[in-house]
Amino acid sequence: ILSGPALAQTADPLPSWNDGPTKEAIVGFVEKVTEEGGPDYVASADRVATFDNDGTLWLEQPMYTQLAFALDRVKALAPEHPEWKDTQPFKAVLDNDMKTLAASGEKGLVQLIAATHAGMSPEEFQQIVGDWLEQAKDKRFNRRYTDLVYQPMLELLSYMRDNGFTTYIVSGGGIEFLRNFSEPVYGIPPAQVVGSSIETKYEVVDGKPTLLRLPEVHFVDDKEGKPIGINEYIGQRPIAAFGNSDGDYQMLDWTTSGDGTRLGVIVHHTDAEREYAYDRDSTFGRLDKALDDAPAKGWIVVDMKKDWNTVFPPAQ
Amino acid sequence: ILSGPALAQTADPLPSWNDGPTKEAIVGFVEKVTEEGGPDYVASADRVATFDNDGTLWLEQPMYTQLAFALDRVKALAPEHPEWKDTQPFKAVLDNDMKTLAASGEKGLVQLIAATHAGMSPEEFQQIVGDWLEQAKDKRFNRRYTDLVYQPMLELLSYMRDNGFTTYIVSGGGIEFLRNFSEPVYGIPPAQVVGSSIETKYEVVDGKPTLLRLPEVHFVDDKEGKPIGINEYIGQRPIAAFGNSDGDYQMLDWTTSGDGTRLGVIVHHTDAEREYAYDRDSTFGRLDKALDDAPAKGWIVVDMKKDWNTVFPPAQ
Ligand SMILES: [Ca+2]
Ligand SMILES: [Ca+2]
Repeated sequence: ILSGPALAQTADPLPSWNDGPTKEAIVGFVEKVTEEGGPDYVASADRVATFDNDGTLWLEQPMYTQLAFALDRVKALAPEHPEWKDTQPFKAVLDNDMKTLAASGEKGLVQLIAATHAGMSPEEFQQIVGDWLEQAKDKRFNRRYTDLVYQPMLELLSYMRDNGFTTYIVSGGGIEFLRNFSEPVYGIPPAQVVGSSIETKYEVVDGKPTLLRLPEVHFVDDKEGKPIGINEYIGQRPIAAFGNSDGDYQMLDWTTSGDGTRLGVIVHHTDAEREYAYDRDSTFGRLDKALDDAPAKGWIVVDMKKDWNTVFPPAQ
Repeated sequence: ILSGPALAQTADPLPSWNDGPTKEAIVGFVEKVTEEGGPDYVASADRVATFDNDGTLWLEQPMYTQLAFALDRVKALAPEHPEWKDTQPFKAVLDNDMKTLAASGEKGLVQLIAATHAGMSPEEFQQIVGDWLEQAKDKRFNRRYTDLVYQPMLELLSYMRDNGFTTYIVSGGGIEFLRNFSEPVYGIPPAQVVGSSIETKYEVVDGKPTLLRLPEVHFVDDKEGKPIGINEYIGQRPIAAFGNSDGDYQMLDWTTSGDGTRLGVIVHHTDAEREYAYDRDSTFGRLDKALDDAPAKGWIVVDMKKDWNTVFPPAQ
C-alpha cells in the first residue's frame, strides 16, 4: 500500500483541471523551471507568480464584488446621510438604478469610494469588510463571495507554492479590501497582495498614533499600473502571470517578454451554465486585445468550459 | 558530547550582544510572544518586525552610503555632462565642496537623485548599484559598505526569523537601492523591503515592454511615511520595530502603541572608537526627541559601546 507522502507524490495536484494542452502547458512550465540542472531551471527565490483577482481567482459578474460591497455600504450608511436621497450617485444606488449609476462614470465611482472606503483607520476598514463578507451573498449562486472562488485556481496556487513559487495577487481592486481575505481564502498573506489604494494619513489622536484612510486615489493597479506596482511592491519581474482581461495585458506582456522560460495565462470565461460566458463586450473583465494577441505572444488561454471540470469549491 | 542540533539549541544566538538589561529585554520579548499557550503569545503570521537601515543595520557616517553612491555617480557621469562644471549642485560634488552641496538643500538633493537614479530601467539601475557596491570602499575602515553592517543586528535578524518572525527593512533610503543587497547581506528578500521611491513609467520600446525610472519623487518613507509605508507595503502593524533616529519616531510609536506585548528599540551610537558617537547634533541620523521620549514610551535604548562586544563582522 502507498504511504501518505508517496500517495501525495503520485496524486494529481490539479484534479479540477481536465487533461489536455492547457493543463500540460502549465504543468510543463512548472516542471521545466524546477528541474535542477535543467536548461530552464529557475532558483526558488526567482519563482515569482502573479495572479489577477477579479475573474481570475474569483467571480466578477454581474459586478465586481468590491462594487457590491460599496453599494451595500451606501445603503447601510444612508440613514446617517439623508441628503443622499437627492444626490447622485447615491440616489442611483439607493434606487437600485444601475443605468444612472453607470452614467455617473469614474467621477461617481470615486465619490462612492470616498463615502464607503475612507474616513476610518485600516483596522476599522478591515472590520467592516470582514463583517460584510461574512454575511453578504451572491444572488445567483446563493453563496458567500469568498466561496465563489475558482477551485482549479486554488489548486494551482497550492501547486505552484508546493513547487517553490511565491504567489502574489496583483489586482485592480483595493489592496486593503483584498487583504481581508487573501490569507484564509487563497493562502496569500497580506504582504503578498498588490492592489489599488487610496491615500493614508498618519495622525496622533488623544496621544495614540493612528492611520486615517483619505478620500483620494493613491495608486491604480490596472493596465500599465500592474507592472509598475509589481516592480514597486515585489521588486522582481514575475516568471509567470495569470489574468483574465485587457487590464492584465501589460502584466502578461512584461512578464513573458523577460529572458528564459515564461508563462502567461488568460482565464477565458466560456461557461454560461456553470459560471458566465463573456469577453469582448463585458463591462466587467473586458477581454479583447489580450485575446487577439494571445497566440502571437504565446499566452495560454484557459477555456473554462473545456479545461475545468469543477468551477467552485463544493458547498459545505 | 553534544550533537549538532543540541549544541545549536544551547548556544547563544546573540553572541555579539553583551549580557545585561538590553539583551534581556530583547530576548525576553521574543520568548514571551513565542510561548505557546502563554498570555503574550502571538501567531507566527503576526510576528512582523521592521528594521530601519541607515544607522540601524549599517553605517551611516560620515554620510549616508546612498549619498556616497550618488556623489560617485556624478563623478563617473561628469565627462558626459561638461555643463556640470559650472552648474550647482554638480559643481560642488566635482569640487568635493560639501559645504556648498549641503547649502543646496533638498532641491539640490532632488537634482542629484534625478541625475544619478533616473533615466534607466530598474534592471539597469540594479546593475549600476551592484557594480558600485562591489568596488566602493569606506575610507576610514577601508572596507566595502556591505561589510560595514552591524554584526549584532545580523544575529538579531537571524534570531528573530528563527523564532517565526518575518523581518522587513523600512528605510528612508531608496527601495531599489536597498533591494540590491538586502537578500545576500541581511537575508531579507526584495519584497520585504520598504523604502523611498521615485516614479516609474511603463513603456513599450521596439516592441519590448520596459520600465523607466523617472526624476520625480513618488514616496518618502521617513517619519510619518514609515507607518504609512508599512501599512501600504506590509499591510500589518509590526509588533517590533528597530530604529536609530527621530526619523523612526512614528514607526516606533505606532508599533509599540498597538495592543499586546510590543518591542521598540533604538540603536544609540555611543562608540567613537569602534564606530561613531553621535545623536542630537548629527546631520545624518539625528536622534533627539526619540531619545528623550524613550523611557516614557518603554523603548529600549541600545548603548553600542556597552551592549555590543563586536560592531562589524570580522574581515575575511
Ligand atoms: Ca480581472
Ligand atoms: Ca536611520
